[in-house]
Amino acid sequence: MPPQTSADTRTGRIPMALPRPRVADSRFRPSAFSGEAVPFEVTAFREGHDIIGVHVRLTSPSGDVSLHALNALHDGFDRWRTTISPIEEGVWTFRFEAFGDDFATWEHAAELKIAAGVDSALMREIGARLFDAAGREKDRSAPQRRMLAEASATLRSADVSDDDALVVVRDPAIAAFFHERPVQSLLTIGPDHELLVERERAGVGAWYEFFPRSEGARRLKDGTVKSGTFRTATKRLPAVAAMGFDVLYLPPIHPIGEVNRKGPNNTLTTKAGDPGSPWAIGSAAGGHDAVHPDLGTLADFRAFVRAARAEGLEVALDFALQAAPDHPWVAEHPEWFTTLPDGSIAFAENPPKKYQDIYPVNFDNDPEGIRAEALRIVRHWIAQGVKIFRVDNPHTKPLQFWEWLIATVNAEHPDVVFLAEAFTRPAPLLGLAQAGFQQSYSYFTWRNTKVELEEFLAWISDETADVMRPNLFVNTPDILTEYLQYGGRPAYKIRAALAATGGASYGVYAGYELIENVARPGSEENIDNEKYEYKFRDWAAADAAGTTIAPYLTRLNEIRRAHPALRQLRGLTLHWSDDSAILVFSKHIDGALTASGRPDTILVVANVDPHSTRQTTIHLDSTVWGVPRGHDFDVEDLITGATWTWNQDAFVRLDAFQEPVHILHVKETP
Amino acid sequence: MPPQTSADTRTGRIPMALPRPRVADSRFRPSAFSGEAVPFEVTAFREGHDIIGVHVRLTSPSGDVSLHALNALHDGFDRWRTTISPIEEGVWTFRFEAFGDDFATWEHAAELKIAAGVDSALMREIGARLFDAAGREKDRSAPQRRMLAEASATLRSADVSDDDALVVVRDPAIAAFFHERPVQSLLTIGPDHELLVERERAGVGAWYEFFPRSEGARRLKDGTVKSGTFRTATKRLPAVAAMGFDVLYLPPIHPIGEVNRKGPNNTLTTKAGDPGSPWAIGSAAGGHDAVHPDLGTLADFRAFVRAARAEGLEVALDFALQAAPDHPWVAEHPEWFTTLPDGSIAFAENPPKKYQDIYPVNFDNDPEGIRAEALRIVRHWIAQGVKIFRVDNPHTKPLQFWEWLIATVNAEHPDVVFLAEAFTRPAPLLGLAQAGFQQSYSYFTWRNTKVELEEFLAWISDETADVMRPNLFVNTPDILTEYLQYGGRPAYKIRAALAATGGASYGVYAGYELIENVARPGSEENIDNEKYEYKFRDWAAADAAGTTIAPYLTRLNEIRRAHPALRQLRGLTLHWSDDSAILVFSKHIDGALTASGRPDTILVVANVDPHSTRQTTIHLDSTVWGVPRGHDFDVEDLITGATWTWNQDAFVRLDAFQEPVHILHVKETP
Repeated sequence: MPPQTSADTRTGRIPMALPRPRVADSRFRPSAFSGEAVPFEVTAFREGHDIIGVHVRLTSPSGDVSLHALNALHDGFDRWRTTISPIEEGVWTFRFEAFGDDFATWEHAAELKIAAGVDSALMREIGARLFDAAGREKDRSAPQRRMLAEASATLRSADVSDDDALVVVRDPAIAAFFHERPVQSLLTIGPDHELLVERERAGVGAWYEFFPRSEGARRLKDGTVKSGTFRTATKRLPAVAAMGFDVLYLPPIHPIGEVNRKGPNNTLTTKAGDPGSPWAIGSAAGGHDAVHPDLGTLADFRAFVRAARAEGLEVALDFALQAAPDHPWVAEHPEWFTTLPDGSIAFAENPPKKYQDIYPVNFDNDPEGIRAEALRIVRHWIAQGVKIFRVDNPHTKPLQFWEWLIATVNAEHPDVVFLAEAFTRPAPLLGLAQAGFQQSYSYFTWRNTKVELEEFLAWISDETADVMRPNLFVNTPDILTEYLQYGGRPAYKIRAALAATGGASYGVYAGYELIENVARPGSEENIDNEKYEYKFRDWAAADAAGTTIAPYLTRLNEIRRAHPALRQLRGLTLHWSDDSAILVFSKHIDGALTASGRPDTILVVANVDPHSTRQTTIHLDSTVWGVPRGHDFDVEDLITGATWTWNQDAFVRLDAFQEPVHILHVKETP
Repeated sequence: MPPQTSADTRTGRIPMALPRPRVADSRFRPSAFSGEAVPFEVTAFREGHDIIGVHVRLTSPSGDVSLHALNALHDGFDRWRTTISPIEEGVWTFRFEAFGDDFATWEHAAELKIAAGVDSALMREIGARLFDAAGREKDRSAPQRRMLAEASATLRSADVSDDDALVVVRDPAIAAFFHERPVQSLLTIGPDHELLVERERAGVGAWYEFFPRSEGARRLKDGTVKSGTFRTATKRLPAVAAMGFDVLYLPPIHPIGEVNRKGPNNTLTTKAGDPGSPWAIGSAAGGHDAVHPDLGTLADFRAFVRAARAEGLEVALDFALQAAPDHPWVAEHPEWFTTLPDGSIAFAENPPKKYQDIYPVNFDNDPEGIRAEALRIVRHWIAQGVKIFRVDNPHTKPLQFWEWLIATVNAEHPDVVFLAEAFTRPAPLLGLAQAGFQQSYSYFTWRNTKVELEEFLAWISDETADVMRPNLFVNTPDILTEYLQYGGRPAYKIRAALAATGGASYGVYAGYELIENVARPGSEENIDNEKYEYKFRDWAAADAAGTTIAPYLTRLNEIRRAHPALRQLRGLTLHWSDDSAILVFSKHIDGALTASGRPDTILVVANVDPHSTRQTTIHLDSTVWGVPRGHDFDVEDLITGATWTWNQDAFVRLDAFQEPVHILHVKETP
């Protein structure tokens, strides 16, 4: 049967609209990560009462074609959906196909009309003809032909009453046969769409951040500090790996400007030995392609990357396109900066505040020159073994530049991942994701109440998930929220548990496990910020004293590795609780979409008030994980090992000072 | 200055996204009616702190180009907006243009930095250079050049203190000069978009529906009925016009099938003289291009149309693509219907219900033949003077067909208006509007509570307004809601007032003014439905007895004619009331967008509970009509003539049995 097309209308015979995955700005394509459970949706309907079916036809980057049936959501909005997990990396194409489902239409009408004694003979004859035609198709097995022939004969037999004919209408074997091989009419083919599938780490991972200069730094007898090096920092790798992290992110490792260097706590005066901010990049020792002499050599860095890889850690580098006043660029390419009427180069500023240790790049005087230099730098670090870049403040540079850079780099190296550190408004945040950034920092640190978190989780797991993959860092050298400043150890556990389970990527900046929660007064940063000085952390003493939550982080990462539902951005459902601070959500993935073939369900019940014990009843929609309403199911707390048999309404009591969060594995029901 | 483009990115130098007016399905274009106040919006932002400006460049169908500045909404989402009222009918194009606003950037930084004593000399010099450059432009008047030169000299003068230099920064004349003529950098041109502007009646109008056969029908002495005719119905036209209606819609005027004709109250048995449903079209007397012999001749119809036009009424015809079993099509074109295996033609049905007086058209056997016939019929009635068609149940025919038909008709006659009678789900409802229907029946009749109405009004006036223009019929021959059945005269007044003010088009089916509210038991239709019989209404007696609300409808239509804000679909704002049944909304239009040049504001305060008296405090956002918070303003009740001076919080008391609705004119403040 030829597809129905109409050269002179935009509407197909069976109208379809609003396909998903989709980016609202149709100039851009949606993206996913390998193994992501991606909902494919479309609005489809037809006139009248006849029943339709909808398929999605996927073509993988290497040309494999597969066809998948969508389910009607019966949501009143004519949406259809199926969830598919593309594995192969590259650009997939997909299109939706809608058709009249002649068997389903007959089945529905026959059921109603034969039962009502209306047009019974007619409905039986129509059915018999359908079955006869289906039996004549080429690819039918002998048993299938027999089943169809028998059904047809039954429908036509004068000896068979209408009541008995209804048995054929209701035969599940026949329904299953036609569900697999629908009798299609008015086949309508939608337009082709694209979906970019990137490697799993583009969307999934547990990140850890440390300053290599602090790892192995020693205070000498004369009071000065001997910087840590790549070699000394290498010694910390096994511990980071043992905690179960996937990615180790390093702040800039380049020479730090000497001119206008900042002192401790962001002061304008420095004393000898103050190391300066790694983000004030460049000095006589070199620029963005150089390694800070205190850290070692480029060879040392490569060895560090290799050592990390041996521990199962991938190293991510910072990419901060800005310069200290003594960066080599300033002399060689003054046109890359803004020269003021008085002949000086403009500092970074947020009027009237100034940042005297940094010159921002002016992208408009020599856009081609800056593009070439940025590409050269990225290629340089790729050549050293780096495939992940955490981009500093990308929203302060032209969006156009990032679209070009990421497309150019990914054309050469599709496995390179860029994380946007853009704590900014939704339009530029989503704009960066749309332009190509594989990951984005998000608003997570400022979403602390139950209501805030519910909105945030819905936003990241559904509303923006076709375009943005958030990385839920719990803290950064720049962010120590009030919640962490005042919430104590419970706050640190709550935020880590939510970050590790609420998204698919999350991150921890070193010191978090030690509950470093003292802020510089009046600010949202740690006092004695590591950006401007060395940190001496006694990991062993903290282990011995039990003051670290490293074991908790370790357990969270173990749970993430064991549970594929937690390595998904989507599949998140919010559930109701009667308490204003008890947040409940589940993550579920179907067995058809996991490597093991088994479904996986994790239920998170969190007391997000770090100051109290809360108890309440929660109300679970267990149908999300396949348990009918009113049926029991077993859960195991993966933190404490406790097990319960729950129903849709469960009582919980969460003492923030003991275990503020249940992370429950919902057991497969037999 | 040349615009900034980048051949290799989809992002412009200044990113722009999500333009509006816009249809979510980008294959279709948005539409508006002539004189509609259309919001033009776009998301635009740039990196860093520099200030941008956004313009929209409109090109009218005849090629006139105009440029309009958008205002930043400061909503956190980087949206920009201006409202424009296109008058010329046809396809407009528009594009957004974003640019760095160098004066605004300087003004902002200079204000902060000079006041803080930071870089004062530098900021003064940058300003002086901006003013010098602006003064060198060609199209400057002598006073402008003088103003700029003086400002430049002041900024550079060593005798002028920083405090005095700030006077220049804050000079409103200079700010106004640069607001009109922004100093642009990084000019970014967005893509071209289209907006279809149709005649005002496509979006605005008060409709009245009557059955011509009832107007002048007489019961004869032998008990039979003599049908009304176009001639007798003509006598009713002055009364309809006097009520202030714009459009008179007639149910089908064609010959009615004799086969399987329905009797009173939709019964299957008829007796001699039962006129049948006008929607069962066609008999030996003719089909869709014929006039029912009882009504007169085609010449009589043309005379009726002329008489209506003389009264200021435009006649709308029904277009119902279906046939009675004795329609000439059935013999001539059996392929236009569905033939069943038993050789019979399929009736319309909703299994297991059947409609034996109607054969639905099958559009798939001979699509080209049906297209040609439908076009022939529409052209035929256009030739008789009809330019508005109310399309019966378009959602039961292929959407593709309507897209083709409307585009084809409008290419010949851009002023032809099609109203979709599609009481169906949102996807097909919006699909029909998107495919070209100028107007749509809506969910209005089933939105009766305050919360329902608030959602509905927001949906029609904003969410869907780029694509759909609803016609808020208060009743139809098929719809007599429970609200009307049980709410008495107050319900009829409330619904009429909401329909007349909530949308831009509304409609009334004859008998509404007489509070005809008795339903066929168990149904949502009038008993003794006019579809199946003649109605004898004694208008004069009702006038005399005061039992009609015709005077109320007349007043509503007078108010609509006097107030341009009510002839707008948009510009609606919901306001808060403390009562669960008191609905408050305003409609406002700026003076720049009205024919008179004066702004217009109507405030509607409705007690939507027809059974009670309610009193409450309402809370008005008077800034919508330009009155600052806390200031007084005067209102006049256009129904009762009462006047009050109100503030943002006002007390109201609405007795449903007296006047359930305030329609208040908010007076211009001096």
